[in-house]
Amino acid sequence: MTAAVPKGPGASKPAPRKPAWSGRFSDVPSDELLAFGASLPVDRRLWREDIDGSKAHARMLAKQGVLTYEEMRDVVRGLDGIAAEIQAGTFTWDNATEDVHMAIESALTARIGEAGARLHTGRSRNDQIATDERLYIKRRMRELATTLNTLRRTLIELAEQHVRTVLPGYTHLQKAQPINLAHYLLAYAQMFARDFGRVKAAHDAADVSPLGSAALAGTGYPLDREYAARELGFADVTINATDSVSDRDFLLDALYAASVCQVHLSRLSEEIILWSTEEFGFITLSDRYATGSSIMPQKKNPDFAELIRGKTGRVLGDLQALLVTLKGLPLAYNKDMQEDKEPVFDALDTLEACLRVMTAMLASATFNGDRMYKAATGGFMAATDLADYLVVKCGVPFRRAHEIVGGIVLTCERQGRTLQDLSVDELQGFYMGFGRDAERALVIDKVVEQRATPGGTAPKAVMRQLELTKEQFNEDEQEQALFF
Amino acid sequence: MTAAVPKGPGASKPAPRKPAWSGRFSDVPSDELLAFGASLPVDRRLWREDIDGSKAHARMLAKQGVLTYEEMRDVVRGLDGIAAEIQAGTFTWDNATEDVHMAIESALTARIGEAGARLHTGRSRNDQIATDERLYIKRRMRELATTLNTLRRTLIELAEQHVRTVLPGYTHLQKAQPINLAHYLLAYAQMFARDFGRVKAAHDAADVSPLGSAALAGTGYPLDREYAARELGFADVTINATDSVSDRDFLLDALYAASVCQVHLSRLSEEIILWSTEEFGFITLSDRYATGSSIMPQKKNPDFAELIRGKTGRVLGDLQALLVTLKGLPLAYNKDMQEDKEPVFDALDTLEACLRVMTAMLASATFNGDRMYKAATGGFMAATDLADYLVVKCGVPFRRAHEIVGGIVLTCERQGRTLQDLSVDELQGFYMGFGRDAERALVIDKVVEQRATPGGTAPKAVMRQLELTKEQFNEDEQEQALFF
Amino acid sequence: MTAAVPKGPGASKPAPRKPAWSGRFSDVPSDELLAFGASLPVDRRLWREDIDGSKAHARMLAKQGVLTYEEMRDVVRGLDGIAAEIQAGTFTWDNATEDVHMAIESALTARIGEAGARLHTGRSRNDQIATDERLYIKRRMRELATTLNTLRRTLIELAEQHVRTVLPGYTHLQKAQPINLAHYLLAYAQMFARDFGRVKAAHDAADVSPLGSAALAGTGYPLDREYAARELGFADVTINATDSVSDRDFLLDALYAASVCQVHLSRLSEEIILWSTEEFGFITLSDRYATGSSIMPQKKNPDFAELIRGKTGRVLGDLQALLVTLKGLPLAYNKDMQEDKEPVFDALDTLEACLRVMTAMLASATFNGDRMYKAATGGFMAATDLADYLVVKCGVPFRRAHEIVGGIVLTCERQGRTLQDLSVDELQGFYMGFGRDAERALVIDKVVEQRATPGGTAPKAVMRQLELTKEQFNEDEQEQALFF
Amino acid sequence: MTAAVPKGPGASKPAPRKPAWSGRFSDVPSDELLAFGASLPVDRRLWREDIDGSKAHARMLAKQGVLTYEEMRDVVRGLDGIAAEIQAGTFTWDNATEDVHMAIESALTARIGEAGARLHTGRSRNDQIATDERLYIKRRMRELATTLNTLRRTLIELAEQHVRTVLPGYTHLQKAQPINLAHYLLAYAQMFARDFGRVKAAHDAADVSPLGSAALAGTGYPLDREYAARELGFADVTINATDSVSDRDFLLDALYAASVCQVHLSRLSEEIILWSTEEFGFITLSDRYATGSSIMPQKKNPDFAELIRGKTGRVLGDLQALLVTLKGLPLAYNKDMQEDKEPVFDALDTLEACLRVMTAMLASATFNGDRMYKAATGGFMAATDLADYLVVKCGVPFRRAHEIVGGIVLTCERQGRTLQDLSVDELQGFYMGFGRDAERALVIDKVVEQRATPGGTAPKAVMRQLELTKEQFNEDEQEQALFF
Repeated sequence: MTAAVPKGPGASKPAPRKPAWSGRFSDVPSDELLAFGASLPVDRRLWREDIDGSKAHARMLAKQGVLTYEEMRDVVRGLDGIAAEIQAGTFTWDNATEDVHMAIESALTARIGEAGARLHTGRSRNDQIATDERLYIKRRMRELATTLNTLRRTLIELAEQHVRTVLPGYTHLQKAQPINLAHYLLAYAQMFARDFGRVKAAHDAADVSPLGSAALAGTGYPLDREYAARELGFADVTINATDSVSDRDFLLDALYAASVCQVHLSRLSEEIILWSTEEFGFITLSDRYATGSSIMPQKKNPDFAELIRGKTGRVLGDLQALLVTLKGLPLAYNKDMQEDKEPVFDALDTLEACLRVMTAMLASATFNGDRMYKAATGGFMAATDLADYLVVKCGVPFRRAHEIVGGIVLTCERQGRTLQDLSVDELQGFYMGFGRDAERALVIDKVVEQRATPGGTAPKAVMRQLELTKEQFNEDEQEQALFF
Repeated sequence: MTAAVPKGPGASKPAPRKPAWSGRFSDVPSDELLAFGASLPVDRRLWREDIDGSKAHARMLAKQGVLTYEEMRDVVRGLDGIAAEIQAGTFTWDNATEDVHMAIESALTARIGEAGARLHTGRSRNDQIATDERLYIKRRMRELATTLNTLRRTLIELAEQHVRTVLPGYTHLQKAQPINLAHYLLAYAQMFARDFGRVKAAHDAADVSPLGSAALAGTGYPLDREYAARELGFADVTINATDSVSDRDFLLDALYAASVCQVHLSRLSEEIILWSTEEFGFITLSDRYATGSSIMPQKKNPDFAELIRGKTGRVLGDLQALLVTLKGLPLAYNKDMQEDKEPVFDALDTLEACLRVMTAMLASATFNGDRMYKAATGGFMAATDLADYLVVKCGVPFRRAHEIVGGIVLTCERQGRTLQDLSVDELQGFYMGFGRDAERALVIDKVVEQRATPGGTAPKAVMRQLELTKEQFNEDEQEQALFF
Repeated sequence: MTAAVPKGPGASKPAPRKPAWSGRFSDVPSDELLAFGASLPVDRRLWREDIDGSKAHARMLAKQGVLTYEEMRDVVRGLDGIAAEIQAGTFTWDNATEDVHMAIESALTARIGEAGARLHTGRSRNDQIATDERLYIKRRMRELATTLNTLRRTLIELAEQHVRTVLPGYTHLQKAQPINLAHYLLAYAQMFARDFGRVKAAHDAADVSPLGSAALAGTGYPLDREYAARELGFADVTINATDSVSDRDFLLDALYAASVCQVHLSRLSEEIILWSTEEFGFITLSDRYATGSSIMPQKKNPDFAELIRGKTGRVLGDLQALLVTLKGLPLAYNKDMQEDKEPVFDALDTLEACLRVMTAMLASATFNGDRMYKAATGGFMAATDLADYLVVKCGVPFRRAHEIVGGIVLTCERQGRTLQDLSVDELQGFYMGFGRDAERALVIDKVVEQRATPGGTAPKAVMRQLELTKEQFNEDEQEQALFF
Repeated sequence: MTAAVPKGPGASKPAPRKPAWSGRFSDVPSDELLAFGASLPVDRRLWREDIDGSKAHARMLAKQGVLTYEEMRDVVRGLDGIAAEIQAGTFTWDNATEDVHMAIESALTARIGEAGARLHTGRSRNDQIATDERLYIKRRMRELATTLNTLRRTLIELAEQHVRTVLPGYTHLQKAQPINLAHYLLAYAQMFARDFGRVKAAHDAADVSPLGSAALAGTGYPLDREYAARELGFADVTINATDSVSDRDFLLDALYAASVCQVHLSRLSEEIILWSTEEFGFITLSDRYATGSSIMPQKKNPDFAELIRGKTGRVLGDLQALLVTLKGLPLAYNKDMQEDKEPVFDALDTLEACLRVMTAMLASATFNGDRMYKAATGGFMAATDLADYLVVKCGVPFRRAHEIVGGIVLTCERQGRTLQDLSVDELQGFYMGFGRDAERALVIDKVVEQRATPGGTAPKAVMRQLELTKEQFNEDEQEQALFF
């Protein structure tokens, strides 16, 4: 058993006296050692994929005449029975077996006899685990894409409600230019749209069948690899047997997709935490999505956003763990690779849960438009527009205009005033060219409305963004429906 | 200046008295601080992209009537002059400027006057650096793809020469089954083929223009973002301005592609190091690709393979560095993101150099077929085939056949004999069903020839692999030629 | 429940309707959310430390008059009862509680009534968890030191048996100079001696009591922090309350100590794997410490060494995970920090198990002295000594001597001969100064005997190393016995 | 040359035709390859240590009669001359040499003839580089300790000024309990005090001399290792020669110390960034420690704090890089280890610069006590104290008191009031036991004054903290002065 994994309920049984490979051995590992080496407590999560893979292998062997039709039927029925029991929670995992493959195969053989022992013909655990893992990644990536798309849809729906909700846009966490909330939410929609692409890429990387590669060199049995691949829904078969049993790129791809998505979530979490402070006050989390303190009665903490941000560490650690494990391994299979499963399970479970929580937390939050608007109007957020006014209306080069307005800001700050407090006369004190219409440049809503370039924050530009984002989303949904 | 970067020749000049943004400031950072914060020593590698971006921006502004035709012409000529000087090494970098953008713009303004100061209209350094970095990644990914394909071609050519060179295939670094060298080399060809896909994906991720996003909100100037994007060869424009200036996913994608490729190189390096030992002796590196010892006159060390393996640390560290930097950053641009360039430069330079060295090292090495063949024949590598014989010829279930042969191996080992030393009579002592033809199962060349499943190591299966690998390679080359 | 952790047997109960902090809330998190946020499935491993901490807190409160003597007695008895049940496996964990603190406190209150509810006076979960974690680290570091010392003792004992077992020393995995096996084993003894120092440092970092820091600011209750610290065996109390609840350096120190030790184990594992190959053949693992293949009957794989090497990834990932989680967190406690436990548990469990397996694997292995000696004599490993001969006997500068001997090696290699095959006449063909005694410089045992500098591989130098290593070991054992 | 390092001014010379080890080679690496493999552009930073090490080695050889007195004198004079030139910038680095050792040795030999060639007697580059690196780490750790202590002193001085400056203390970034600024600053003083300990530990780890270990096995020359160690100021000599040339733990220790310190800086930076926002407004950075925007004239960005936070990525990446590089390396020296220098240089340079900037930024910042105080009084920060009142004055169990006060907060929040707005009558509406003195529990200054436990935030407790922190600081300064 992998050292660090808490034992499940059935984990207390003795380890085996005699493993499947004991023929050439005069002695076998101790129970403690087999426990250290066994992967069953971890890899039994792959039971579904392992059974599917075995059924496809059995059908293929029968088609090729390696198994009889009757043997194949017994195998398939036996495996279906085992699957039903596992599903129902009634299957007894024999912890004396090393891994999920042997646990299922030995149960099968105990039930149907010799045909079970024939199932492993033309197959090695090396190609078997690679097949299981690829099927697993395909399934998890499909599920992840669905969860991700629920978050994307939520962001789009929220954006639709907030095309005219103005708040300060920040750079360097300093107020920069006013934007609308829809614009802000759609920035995150873009991040998660790219994440969808990486999830899809990880799915496609896994979507090639290694089954039939045997230990590392192929086999002499007349296997039909294409047939087995089709049975399992793989798009293709792998080209090289040694690579097939050594390749874990598809796991790295999944871990990488998860890592970037988790970093995106950490950014959104940071903002939810900031916005939940009394100081910002832009968002009020539902009481259902916050917790209190055991000592301070007044506290309402954005725990879930903090946890999501904090879990970024473990996901990045998981990616790093597998990269390190693979570094410097010679071909082909090495036992080091048994360590490939836990980081993947951990990262995907974590991300899946974080995405769900984030979606629900956003959907139930209250966005405080008044606080946002007030924050957008108080300071110097129209400074860029005042400079642009000088460029457009007075022909001042931008760099010079920037300098003039910088001086105005400095003066205002010293006097405790805002740009909106200045009269045109006063403006002219800084630069004679300011006209009556300069004041218009300082109205925050006008400022927002002005930035109408594609991708800009003007309501009409944001409406267009919404259209494009929805198109993009629909295409991704269709792609998922059709191809993965 | 970024702390850890050795200063280039011109780095000793004083930092600026007055930066471009000093209007609202009563005091400015000290030289030491500006040096700490300046990115010029690092980002000046982006000069080419910065100038291309500025030229496109100027043309677009002119088309839209924001610049006059003459101003645009002056800008373009001025920039071309600067580019020529940088290329020739005669340009004086003004280290008093903060970054590559300001260095070039201030040189331009010094040369052409006010039109230079107008160039920054409707643009922020936030979208400017994003544009530069995307152009840069596109170029580096194209170059990397070419370098990678040279290695792939070398592997294919070597494989063509070694379809009948038999060596031991290893799992757990223990002799497993005989394979041929072509089969082994084609396993690596598959890894690098997948790397090509990731390089392509990183290229495509970068191939969207953020230009025109301005600081984070778009701008009020009537920009034609599509036009500028076309000028620069981008496939599309970004959808959201805030995301455009905060997004560094395309850099992560490049770092990830580099990381996995470097891990592949580390595996190949490990094997070259192993094979170069006196103990294995499968490969002799050219004297040009090995070095000696300052104290031990006999040493011939596979230094370059070791270095490639060792450099895996830095590339994985680079990926981790950027992931950590981005974790938890609120929108939009934060100065933390200035730290995005060095890990990317370092990882891509490292990988590019490692790929070149690996290619030349492999191409010039001698593969010692005799040593390989001898190593493949001595031991028990036909054991699987002897078990398969029992399955196919005698109808023994595989698990039972495995046990019988395991016992034979144990006996041989105790007696210091190999499988090939056993007579049929002796075999029958272990299992009566062995026939006269059992000896054939033990001939190593036959063993290899037998594994003829698709992807297997039999020469005819390997010939088919070669065909498929070449097709795959040609498709990738065509894709690169046409689309990136 | 933390997302990625498999639920234990009792994990299926409903989450709480009403958490301890619900006073100011109109609604509370859903069960799913509380499950996402709850840490009980992970932190209940700290039950022993949590109860010890609470008992000490209660005693201190009683001493200070905050609790009555009777209340204190009830609390202590109640907690002892709970501890006995947990120990016996009969305690019912209430998964409706958020964490180990609330689970135990609510069980206590259910048993002893109001006094249980008074226990939390002057305390916050913030200082409570910090106390628990510090006690836990102290215990684990003590255990780890013991396990580590067993490995050190094993290495020393093996070294004592192999002072005259000669094998090739390698640099760049090329044969460099002959060494003896004791010398080699003592190199690892030094690595693990340094690891002991880091484990001790992590222990000492944890050995300061944060109890009484309350939420972040101390408390108004008249606590005696020193008294509670003494009760718990802490060496000191922390200086600043805010730091006390935010500091996780001691966990990082433990993770770092584990990471370096695991890297050391990975190096030793790599050598065991190499030495177990047919090609090297220096070591034969006990059949109890190796496993076979499900398809290849002859295989005997060094699985456990491979697993140890492979697990390096997860330990390095764990260190990275916590560093990433802590990056950029403002003071004081943030929920992100709940993620601090799993990487620590995982890394320490992993290292502990790897150390045990490594110790037993080494102790039961057979070192094949004949194979080693043969490998040491065949090649050119006396080349340095031949060069030294020229320096010492003929006064040739070392660099020139190196060149001469390099030429001799090149000639031998081309002729398929070794240095020992050369006559003195032939040597003189390369350099006239060679005398009759030159042959002695080439005798491998002499070569080893010569390197008698302190730390060198000559048997007498190794005997001295053994003495020093044993002294060092004894001092560490004493230090552990006395101080931690 | 290491791939990713920008070439220095002199880096363009041709690589060597004939390296020092070329005797047994019929061909040598190409210039490009030698460039890939050469470490001179990186390791020449170690020139001072390399020369010191060589001088000590020469003196020792003379003392032992291996060199004549005259030879030794020539060597020392020659090396001093070279050192003076390097110092003055007039030394010509011969890029045709592989590394700093060969560059200096060949210059020496060119100057003083054969005695230079004798210097390498009884030494290998393996123990030479280990010696250089250990001397280097000792020096850098001393410097780092000094820089770190300047920051610690600054924090203490600032704390002394702010014992009565009240601000909100936060947990979960929500206002928790009022603290004073001194208390907050002293929390960071504790973090950096622990960092001092780790820097000291890294220094001590390096403070053992490997010189005289030669390639990996010691040497036959009659070296006096203790003498050379004393000459170089090492505290001791290493025990085992093979470990001496393979050990890089001391570099990991330095990288780890840097990583944790950088994480601490990232936390402080995060708060400076938060506090600099208009929303918090607790701090105003000096104009010298902030920068502006090229597009937004009003911006004043906390760039330097952001950069420090952002640089955490590279430092964590550097630690990871070396851990990955060392993973799985067999004994003894492997070329992979050449990659050990750049992460160390990068991390130490980065940390050193960040510490300096942080110190100056803090020292020149204005802490806005009024804003802080106002923020501390507005909300519900006395809630814990109101609950404590119920416990102490009315004998209510804490858990119940928490619930009552939670209800009061909820009511206030709905009515837009604060705790301080409530009359005693109103309080009694929630719980009859509230007395006239309840209002006192709500006065913020009283609240702060109350938390007088050791480590608490009451001014008198903080005064005591200040004393303890200064004692701790003085002890560390003394330790550094005396022992490192």
